[in-house]
Amino acid sequence: MSEVNKVVLAYSGGLDTSVILKWLQDTYNCEIVTFTADIGQGEEVEPARAKAIKFGIKPENIFIDDLREEFVRDFVYPMFRANTVYEGEYLLGTSIARPLIAKRQIEIARQVGADTVSHGATGKGNDQVRFELGYYALEPGIKVIAPWREWDLLSREKLLAYAEAAGIAIDMKHKQGGAPYSMDANLLHISYEGRHLEDPKAEAEAAMWRWTVSPEEAPDEAEYLDIEYEGGDIVGLNGKRMTPAEVLTALNEIGGKHGIGRLDLVENRYVGMKSRGCYETPGGTIMLRAHRAIESITLDREVAHLKDDLMPRYASLIYNGYWWSPERKALQILIDHTQAAVNGWVRVKLYKGNVYTVARDSKNTLFDQTIATFDDDGGAYNQADAGGFIKLNALRMRIAENARRQRG
Amino acid sequence: MSEVNKVVLAYSGGLDTSVILKWLQDTYNCEIVTFTADIGQGEEVEPARAKAIKFGIKPENIFIDDLREEFVRDFVYPMFRANTVYEGEYLLGTSIARPLIAKRQIEIARQVGADTVSHGATGKGNDQVRFELGYYALEPGIKVIAPWREWDLLSREKLLAYAEAAGIAIDMKHKQGGAPYSMDANLLHISYEGRHLEDPKAEAEAAMWRWTVSPEEAPDEAEYLDIEYEGGDIVGLNGKRMTPAEVLTALNEIGGKHGIGRLDLVENRYVGMKSRGCYETPGGTIMLRAHRAIESITLDREVAHLKDDLMPRYASLIYNGYWWSPERKALQILIDHTQAAVNGWVRVKLYKGNVYTVARDSKNTLFDQTIATFDDDGGAYNQADAGGFIKLNALRMRIAENARRQRG
Amino acid sequence: MSEVNKVVLAYSGGLDTSVILKWLQDTYNCEIVTFTADIGQGEEVEPARAKAIKFGIKPENIFIDDLREEFVRDFVYPMFRANTVYEGEYLLGTSIARPLIAKRQIEIARQVGADTVSHGATGKGNDQVRFELGYYALEPGIKVIAPWREWDLLSREKLLAYAEAAGIAIDMKHKQGGAPYSMDANLLHISYEGRHLEDPKAEAEAAMWRWTVSPEEAPDEAEYLDIEYEGGDIVGLNGKRMTPAEVLTALNEIGGKHGIGRLDLVENRYVGMKSRGCYETPGGTIMLRAHRAIESITLDREVAHLKDDLMPRYASLIYNGYWWSPERKALQILIDHTQAAVNGWVRVKLYKGNVYTVARDSKNTLFDQTIATFDDDGGAYNQADAGGFIKLNALRMRIAENARRQRG
Amino acid sequence: MSEVNKVVLAYSGGLDTSVILKWLQDTYNCEIVTFTADIGQGEEVEPARAKAIKFGIKPENIFIDDLREEFVRDFVYPMFRANTVYEGEYLLGTSIARPLIAKRQIEIARQVGADTVSHGATGKGNDQVRFELGYYALEPGIKVIAPWREWDLLSREKLLAYAEAAGIAIDMKHKQGGAPYSMDANLLHISYEGRHLEDPKAEAEAAMWRWTVSPEEAPDEAEYLDIEYEGGDIVGLNGKRMTPAEVLTALNEIGGKHGIGRLDLVENRYVGMKSRGCYETPGGTIMLRAHRAIESITLDREVAHLKDDLMPRYASLIYNGYWWSPERKALQILIDHTQAAVNGWVRVKLYKGNVYTVARDSKNTLFDQTIATFDDDGGAYNQADAGGFIKLNALRMRIAENARRQRG
Repeated sequence: MSEVNKVVLAYSGGLDTSVILKWLQDTYNCEIVTFTADIGQGEEVEPARAKAIKFGIKPENIFIDDLREEFVRDFVYPMFRANTVYEGEYLLGTSIARPLIAKRQIEIARQVGADTVSHGATGKGNDQVRFELGYYALEPGIKVIAPWREWDLLSREKLLAYAEAAGIAIDMKHKQGGAPYSMDANLLHISYEGRHLEDPKAEAEAAMWRWTVSPEEAPDEAEYLDIEYEGGDIVGLNGKRMTPAEVLTALNEIGGKHGIGRLDLVENRYVGMKSRGCYETPGGTIMLRAHRAIESITLDREVAHLKDDLMPRYASLIYNGYWWSPERKALQILIDHTQAAVNGWVRVKLYKGNVYTVARDSKNTLFDQTIATFDDDGGAYNQADAGGFIKLNALRMRIAENARRQRG
Repeated sequence: MSEVNKVVLAYSGGLDTSVILKWLQDTYNCEIVTFTADIGQGEEVEPARAKAIKFGIKPENIFIDDLREEFVRDFVYPMFRANTVYEGEYLLGTSIARPLIAKRQIEIARQVGADTVSHGATGKGNDQVRFELGYYALEPGIKVIAPWREWDLLSREKLLAYAEAAGIAIDMKHKQGGAPYSMDANLLHISYEGRHLEDPKAEAEAAMWRWTVSPEEAPDEAEYLDIEYEGGDIVGLNGKRMTPAEVLTALNEIGGKHGIGRLDLVENRYVGMKSRGCYETPGGTIMLRAHRAIESITLDREVAHLKDDLMPRYASLIYNGYWWSPERKALQILIDHTQAAVNGWVRVKLYKGNVYTVARDSKNTLFDQTIATFDDDGGAYNQADAGGFIKLNALRMRIAENARRQRG
Repeated sequence: MSEVNKVVLAYSGGLDTSVILKWLQDTYNCEIVTFTADIGQGEEVEPARAKAIKFGIKPENIFIDDLREEFVRDFVYPMFRANTVYEGEYLLGTSIARPLIAKRQIEIARQVGADTVSHGATGKGNDQVRFELGYYALEPGIKVIAPWREWDLLSREKLLAYAEAAGIAIDMKHKQGGAPYSMDANLLHISYEGRHLEDPKAEAEAAMWRWTVSPEEAPDEAEYLDIEYEGGDIVGLNGKRMTPAEVLTALNEIGGKHGIGRLDLVENRYVGMKSRGCYETPGGTIMLRAHRAIESITLDREVAHLKDDLMPRYASLIYNGYWWSPERKALQILIDHTQAAVNGWVRVKLYKGNVYTVARDSKNTLFDQTIATFDDDGGAYNQADAGGFIKLNALRMRIAENARRQRG
Repeated sequence: MSEVNKVVLAYSGGLDTSVILKWLQDTYNCEIVTFTADIGQGEEVEPARAKAIKFGIKPENIFIDDLREEFVRDFVYPMFRANTVYEGEYLLGTSIARPLIAKRQIEIARQVGADTVSHGATGKGNDQVRFELGYYALEPGIKVIAPWREWDLLSREKLLAYAEAAGIAIDMKHKQGGAPYSMDANLLHISYEGRHLEDPKAEAEAAMWRWTVSPEEAPDEAEYLDIEYEGGDIVGLNGKRMTPAEVLTALNEIGGKHGIGRLDLVENRYVGMKSRGCYETPGGTIMLRAHRAIESITLDREVAHLKDDLMPRYASLIYNGYWWSPERKALQILIDHTQAAVNGWVRVKLYKGNVYTVARDSKNTLFDQTIATFDDDGGAYNQADAGGFIKLNALRMRIAENARRQRG
C-alpha cells in the first residue's frame, strides 16, 4: 500500500461513497477532499456538504459544483453529433458523464495539492476504467484508490455492517429485502443494473422505471415538437432559444411524459463480461432521431456514410472510457468538421413511447426538389446518364463472369 | 438502337408496366415474355396472365411465380443476420427484393432463349441500378431495355395518353388529381415516394399509410410475442414452428395491428440525389429488435463489434444493388459464420408502435450470472485484475502526457 | 451536341492534345484557351506557346503556369501525411496531379469567361474521371468536352492521319513501329502504360525506364540522407532547409541515382477494368518510408492505427478522383490534426533500389527508454499489471469456452 | 501463490528458460514437463532433452516436436493470404508463432494431466499476452506461471548469479560485456531487441544481422524466381512442387543470399509502450510481394479493397495475441473464401535487397486485354458510358455547390 497524503473522493453523499469516505479515513489515515457534482441526476447535492462535515472534512475541502451546462455542452452534444449508439441500442448515458467527473476531480486535486483520487465504482464494471483512464490521461502521476478492488466489503451485508458500525445513516430501502438496483443518473439518463435484472430472461418490474411513465400511461394525444439546430447542436425548442442543459432538461420532461426512451438490453462490458441493464433516456432518444433527420437533408451522402462507418468505433471509445484519448479527439475533429452545415429544424411527433420524424427543413438543405421529382424535371437530370453509370459499375462483374465461362 | 429478338419483361400487370409492354412491342417489334412474381406485395398476380394475353403474349411466354419463400429465406433472412440498416433507419425493403427479380428474369431468359430483359424502373432511382447490376452480374452479355431512360413519356400526362391510345385500362385513382404515390410492396415492406412527399418539410398525410394502423388506433392492450431463433434466423413464433414466409407474414400482421414500423425519412440515392420516402415495415421492425436481442447473449463482444463495423458497408452494398457482387458474398460468408450460435428465444412486447425487448434466453448464452453479479461471486472474477488492465491501457496516454510536460 | 462558346483546354503541346486542339476548332468552331502547366514533368512548357499560336490561339488565351510548389505543398504533402498507398503498392503519382489541373482550368475558365473545359484523357481510364469530378465539384454548371469519348480517332493510325492532314508535326517516335507507351509525368512520378505492358506475363523492357537507373547500374556505395520533418512534412534534407518542390526535386535526383522507386503492377481502375502499369517514384518512395519512421516515434498507437484503418479509403478517394469531395476533406482534417507532433528527423540509407530507415529522433518522441528497456526500469512499469491486463482481455474467451463445455 | 501440481514449460534449452525451469522447481516444488519445439529457429532442439534430464525431468515428461510444417501451413500461410503487415512494415514473424506454441502446450498439459503452464516471456512485452491469451482461450481453467512477472531476477546480473548458483552452463556471449540482444527466431523470421537498439537514433550494428547478407555483399547478378500459387498459397518454386515448410525454407535461403528482408523499426506494443526492433524476414518479404501480385490479376477490385480495409485490424489481432479469438476466426473465414481463385504464377526478380514483381499469369485472371487496350477494342467497351458514370458520380457535389451558391 503506497503512501497517501491527500485524496479527492468523488462523493455523492449516498451510502456507498459515505462508507468509502470512512474506509479511506480508517485505512489510509489521510486528508480527504470531497467532490460532489450536479450533473442532473435529479437529487440535491447540497446535503452532501453536511454529511461530509460530519465525517470531519474541512469546509475548504468540500467541493460542490453545478456541472450541468458543461456536461451537456462539452460532452453530450459532441457525442450526439456522431449519432452515437453502442451495440445498436445503448445511448451511453453513464459512459459520457465519467470523463467530466474525472476531469473535475483532477482539477481539484491540482488545486488542493492532492496526490490521490478515489471513486466508488466496483471492480467488475466499466466505470472504474472510465474514471481511471481519465485520471491517468490528464495527470499521469496521480495515485488512484479504488476501494471496491481493495477492501473485503464485497457483500451487501458486510457493507451495511461497516456503515452501521461507522454510524452512517442507512435508508429504509437499503435495510429491506435485498440489494437495491445499482443506479446511475445524470441529465442524459438513468440506468438500472443488478437485482432482478441479473436474470436476462425475466422482464424488468414495472415499478423499477423512474423517469418515464409507461407508454400505457402516457397521454392519449400526440404532441408535436419543433427542434432547432445550429452546427449540429440543438439551440431551441418550439421557437424558444435555450442553453444546452435547458434543452436536455426540457426534452427529458416532454419525453418522460410521453413514455419515451425505455430500453432493456444485455451489453458487453469492456472488462469482458456481459451485463443486463435497463435505461431511461427520454431526451436523448428524441435527440438521436432528430439529429439523424436534420443531417439527412444537410449532409453529403459520403460524409454521412463515413460518419456511420466510424460511429461504432467512436461509441466503443466512449463506452470503454477513452474520452480523453488522442484517437477520440482525432475522430471528434472530423465529426465536428462535418457539422458546420447541420442547421435547420426538425418536427417530431411524440406519442406513447414513439418519436416520429414528420418534417424537416434547412437553409443548408441538399434536397433538390427539381431533380428528385417524379415529374418532368426540365432537363435538370439526364436519365440517359444512368445507363453509363450502371454499365461501368457492372463492368468488373461482367468481365469476371465472362472469364469464368471461358474457363468452362 | 441495337437489334432485339426476345425480351423478358418484369411485368406487374399494373398501368406502368402495361404501357411498357405495349411500348416494347411498338418500338422493338419483338417477342415478349412476361414475368410476374408474388413476393408478398399483397396483390393477386394471376390477373396479370389475362392482361398479358390481351397484349398478344403467347401463353408459354407468361411466367407467374410464387417467390415468397425464396424471398424471405434467401434474401430477407441473410440480410437481417447483419442487423442491416441503411443510413441509420431504412430497413431496405425495396432494395432486397430487386436481386431476386433480376435473378429470376435471367433464369427465364435462359430458359426461353431471350437476348434481352426489361424493367419498369425510372432513370432517376436506385431500382434501375439494382435490376441491371443483377442482370449483368449473372448474364454478362444480356441486353437491357430501360424504357424510362429511352422514351419520351416522362410526364404523367403523356403516359396516360399513351395508355389510352393503346386501350390500356386506367384505374380511377390514376385519372384523378395528379400522380399517385410511387409505391413498392413486398413481404418486407411497402414504400411511398413522390406526390406530397416531395416536400420534406410537410408531414405525410394520414391516409397514405396502408399496412399499419396508426399507433393511435392500435389496441390499448400490449401483446407479448415469443420469437424462436436457430442459426440467426426466426424459426417459430409463440411456440409454433413456421417457414420463413409464414414468419414474416405473421409478423407483418401482428406488427401492422399494433402500428409498428412506420418511417419517414430523406435518404441518399446511389444515383446522387436525396429523396424523401415513407416506409411501413411492421415485421422487419420486430425482427431487427429481436435479432439484436438474441445476439446480445450469444455473440462474442468482438464478433458483434466486427459485425457492427461492417454493417453500414453491407447495407450500402444492398442499397446500391450489389447483392450479386463478390464483395457482398464475401461479407455474407463472415456474417453467416457468426450466426451458428445465435439460437434461443426473445420475448418482445408490442404496443402502439413500440417493440420492446423484455426477455431473452439461449442454450448458447454467454451471459454468465456468476461473474456479472453485484454480489460476491465466490472468486469467479478477481477484481484486482482490473487495476492492471487499466494501468496498461492507460500507459500510452501517461507516457504521452509525461513527455509533453517534459518538453514544457 | 450542345452549344459551346469558349473552351479551356488542358494542353501539353504534345501530339495528342494538339490533335484535340485542332479537332475542337473543327468540330465546335469555338474560341480556344490553352492551359499548360509545369508540374515537374521534366519537359519545357514554354514551347507550347508557339504551338498554340500556330493554331491561331490568341496570345491572351494562352496560359502557362509553374505549379510545382503548389503541387507539392497542397497535394503531394497532404497525401503523404496519410502514408497513402493504393492497393498496397501504388503511390498515386498520376492521381494526385489531376485535381490541381482541374482546379486551375476552372479558375482560368472563370477568368476568361469560358463555358467549357476539355482534356485529353481517354474514355477508358481514370484520368477522365479525376478531371471531370474536379470540374463539376468546383463549377457545377461547366460543360465538358472529352474528345476521346466523342470522336472516331480511336486507333493510332486514324489519329496520325488526322494530325498529318492538319499539319501537326509528328515526332519520329510516333511514326515508327507501333504506339508509344502512354506516359504521364510530374514531380512525383512518371508512369508507363500500354504497348508491351498490355501483357502482364511479360517483363517490362529495360529501355522503358527513364527516371531511375537500374539498381544494377546504381552506385556501389550506399548514401545516407537526413530528412527533417515539421508537422508531418519534410522541410529540409541533410540540414538544408528547402521548399516543398525543392525537397521533392532533390529526393527524385538522389533516389533516381540509386535506382529507387521502380514498380510494376496490375491495378484496378475505377472504370471497372484491370490495367498494368509501371511507375518510377524515386522521391515518393523515400518519403513514404521516412514518414512512417518519423510517425513511429511521434504518433500515439491508436491514432496511428486509426490512420492505417482509414488509409485505403483515403487512397481510393484520391485514385478515383474525389480530391475535391467533402469526404476527402473530412478525412484530411483528421489526418492533418494528427500531424502536429510529427516533428524530428529520420536517417535513411539508400543503396541500389533500397531505402532503409536506420535512425530517427524527435523532440516529440513518445519512445520512453526507461520503460522499454530490458534492464531494471526502477519501477517505471509494474510487470504485475500485465497479469490483470491479460486476464481481463481473456475473460470473454474463457467464459465462452466454459459455456461451450457445459453445453457438452 | 496458488497450489501448483504439474507445469508444462515452454523450454528452449537456453539460459533463460533453464533458469526458469530451476526457479519453478525451487519455488513451486512441482513436477515439470518440458516442451521444446522446432519451428525453424535454426537451432538443434534435441540437446534440450539432455539438459532437461540434468534438471531431473523424467523422460516421459520431455516433449520435443517438429512443428515446422504445421507452423507454415496453419499459421504463416493463412496470415499471408491477408497480405498482413502491422503498422505498415512489420511482417509479424514473432507474433504468428506464439499461438502454435500455446496450443501445443495446452495439448501436452491435457495429455499429461498438468494444471499449469509456464513461459519465458517478460512482463513488458507482447509475447506474454500472446501465450496467455492462447492458453486461456483453449483451456479456460488453466493456471499460468509467468516467472518474469513474479521473481526478482529482473537484472541480467541477478539472473546470471542465479544460473551460476544452480550450476547452469553460461555461454561466453552472456558472460561478456552487457546483455545480448533479445532474439526470437522461427521459419518466418529472426528478431532483435534490446542492447544498442534501445536508442532509436543509433543505427543498428552491421554485425547484428544473422540471416541475411548485407545488400552490399549480395550477388552482383540478379536472380529470377517463379512462384506457383494455389488457393492463395505457394505450392511450388521454379516448377518444383514443395510443402509449405519446404517453400519457406527455400525462400529464406534465396532471400537471405540476396540480402532481402531487413527491417529496422519502432513499433507500438500492445502493453502500451513503443519498442525498437530489427527483423530479418527474407522469405516472408518475397511472399508478401508475390501474393499481392497474384491477387492483382485474380481478385475482384472490391474484394481486394475489402481485404485491404480489414487487413490492419487482422494484423493487430495477430500482433496482440488474438489468434484463437472468435473475431480472428471470423475474419479468416472471409479471407480464405476470397482465395479460391488466387491461382497462377508470379515471377520475381531478386537483387541486393530488392524483390521486384516482373510478370504474373493465371488461368483465373480477370485482366482482360481486349478491354484494357489502348488500341481499338472492337466495341468491347463503350467509351460513352464513362460520361454518364462521371455525371452521376458528380451529381451530389454539383447539387451541393449549386445550393451553396444559391444561399450566397
